[in-house]
Amino acid sequence: MKRKIAILGATGSIGKSTLDLIERSPERFEVVAVTAATNSEALADIARRTGARLAVVADQSRVADLAERLSGTECRAAGPEALSEAAAGEAELVIAAIVGCAGLEPVMAAVEAGKTVALANKEALVTAGALMTEAASRNGATLLPIDSEHNAIFQCLAGNRKDDVSRLILTASGGPFRKASLEEMRAATPAQAVAHPNWSMGAKISVDSATCMNKGLELIEAHYLFGLPSERIDILIHPQSVVHSLVEYVDGSVLAQLGSPDMRIAIAYALAWPERMATPAERIDLARIGKLDFEAPDVERFPALRIAREALEAGGAAPIVVNAANEVAVAAFLAGAIRFTDIVTAVEEALQHADLAAPSTIPHVLEIDQITRRHVEAAMKAMCH
Amino acid sequence: MKRKIAILGATGSIGKSTLDLIERSPERFEVVAVTAATNSEALADIARRTGARLAVVADQSRVADLAERLSGTECRAAGPEALSEAAAGEAELVIAAIVGCAGLEPVMAAVEAGKTVALANKEALVTAGALMTEAASRNGATLLPIDSEHNAIFQCLAGNRKDDVSRLILTASGGPFRKASLEEMRAATPAQAVAHPNWSMGAKISVDSATCMNKGLELIEAHYLFGLPSERIDILIHPQSVVHSLVEYVDGSVLAQLGSPDMRIAIAYALAWPERMATPAERIDLARIGKLDFEAPDVERFPALRIAREALEAGGAAPIVVNAANEVAVAAFLAGAIRFTDIVTAVEEALQHADLAAPSTIPHVLEIDQITRRHVEAAMKAMCH
Repeated sequence: MKRKIAILGATGSIGKSTLDLIERSPERFEVVAVTAATNSEALADIARRTGARLAVVADQSRVADLAERLSGTECRAAGPEALSEAAAGEAELVIAAIVGCAGLEPVMAAVEAGKTVALANKEALVTAGALMTEAASRNGATLLPIDSEHNAIFQCLAGNRKDDVSRLILTASGGPFRKASLEEMRAATPAQAVAHPNWSMGAKISVDSATCMNKGLELIEAHYLFGLPSERIDILIHPQSVVHSLVEYVDGSVLAQLGSPDMRIAIAYALAWPERMATPAERIDLARIGKLDFEAPDVERFPALRIAREALEAGGAAPIVVNAANEVAVAAFLAGAIRFTDIVTAVEEALQHADLAAPSTIPHVLEIDQITRRHVEAAMKAMCH
Repeated sequence: MKRKIAILGATGSIGKSTLDLIERSPERFEVVAVTAATNSEALADIARRTGARLAVVADQSRVADLAERLSGTECRAAGPEALSEAAAGEAELVIAAIVGCAGLEPVMAAVEAGKTVALANKEALVTAGALMTEAASRNGATLLPIDSEHNAIFQCLAGNRKDDVSRLILTASGGPFRKASLEEMRAATPAQAVAHPNWSMGAKISVDSATCMNKGLELIEAHYLFGLPSERIDILIHPQSVVHSLVEYVDGSVLAQLGSPDMRIAIAYALAWPERMATPAERIDLARIGKLDFEAPDVERFPALRIAREALEAGGAAPIVVNAANEVAVAAFLAGAIRFTDIVTAVEEALQHADLAAPSTIPHVLEIDQITRRHVEAAMKAMCH
């Protein structure tokens, strides 16, 4: 029996890697639905190649183009109203790779339909972690992380009881400013900030890696995924990014997952789970790598780690505010409007001014996200220098 | 329900660590049988403390003393004829920690009785691997490794299918002569050879670590325990001995188990398996450790690795010959009779002169062991300089 797959965000980097793996193992998988934000041309091509029966483009103005490109196939072309259908329809496994909060509604639809949902979308758990995990537990859905750190932890938990876990240890590369002084960070340019040492990533997430906010958001994500309190989730700087994360058990054993910086490893684990499947990812050779370095994170120079932890501990809307404020502030930094060190200041300011009452629905989450964005955009204009 | 435990070799180092753990979790375990080679006084003390119902001393001349020390208790004192009864009796889990080939018969008795057998005894699998694993499979027995490397691999295999494993990677400290030249090794004294960098161990196994024969024997053990061929079991030098071993999967993921050098971690995993239990072992702090080094082994300077691999590939009696010849040669080195580099030469010479036909029973294994010892002892006398 082939496993039926829906790919939400099929034209992005995670979507492409997923398709690459599925096309290498056509006997194991059947793609039933694919979605994209705007790129109807690439989406139609994917739908034709995979034989998907539903293709959804979120941009209403591209639906007619998609339909035309799919004419003569058995694939139905649809617009944003069908996103949740793609997520909650006939697929057994949903690859949730839609960027940002646009993915929240379809992910929740998949969770409420009791699907196995592979989350490449950090926002789903950062902004709606309590709602998502509660719905998953109520509907018998399974959440599989694709983020390399959380996927590593998930792998290190296999075959073990949650009760036997004592700590989760998220590794962080430390980013391009790991050894920079606060003064150097104040003067950092966007070009310096996006130079991630190990992974090739988009500008926004590269800046998050430079501020360590990325790791702060992953801390929040880990809490919701694995159910451990903040004080039992540590962050460890590991510049080579070979050890993707670790789990410490009550007996003193620590299990670690290591691998090359290739997202296909984590995606393959989600696709084949609870089994595994072959990937063409490069094998690591520890003798050639020679050494792995580790150091404690410096919360003084990287206050994003403290702020994210405080937001996790405050709960309610605080993680939504951190996520939205950070996104606006990073965009302002990349546009040259604020300094690198102002990013975290803007997030902290937003937290101080926000209503932190917990959201009770996804629309409520999206509303808090929007309110925060408007507040921070206004603040950015005032801060400009 | 308490788990019923037999401890074969209760007065040795593994036995003591096992008792330490059991006494910390009295609600989980019940010791039903204990054995020792000769120390009837320590054994009687253990039997009284644990409430074991059978205590066996392998030295017939100590049985009367043991019986006297246990008078007034409900524990039966017995001699070597009862060793297999201790192993195959009412225990569900047998801790097999008898040193050397003396453990073979009782371990086989436990395996034939379908027990879960935790092997601290390397010889059982090195010398009788094919017989033991065949008997385990026929009788539904489970073999749990307590050796830290094999225990690490066992932990990294939990929750995974054997078919998804691509390689096992055994780590080795490299021993005290990791950076020594062949000339320096030729001149090495017993005191230099027993100075193991990370673990506190007996003289014999410390010399095995210095020649790397220890890792060669573990390679053979890993083959029988995990069923992978020689070419899919690698050896990796890792001087800090923090990573106890690793498993590479078909997707490119590598899982590793890390821990402090405390045998109680591996013993606890065997005691509580498939769950875990708390231990007082020191937690590792990677930020404090700072770095982990790795390098390829040098088979030129450490020919024991090549010889053990050849013996594994030759199969039959070859691993028995390697084990016995090495034991005699190490004793001769520790007695000052031969050079450090002569140890491996003696093993290779023994292999060339031995009949390598596969043994079909444990008595046959013991006979090959004895023949080899006599041959190498004679050769040692001729080599003395």
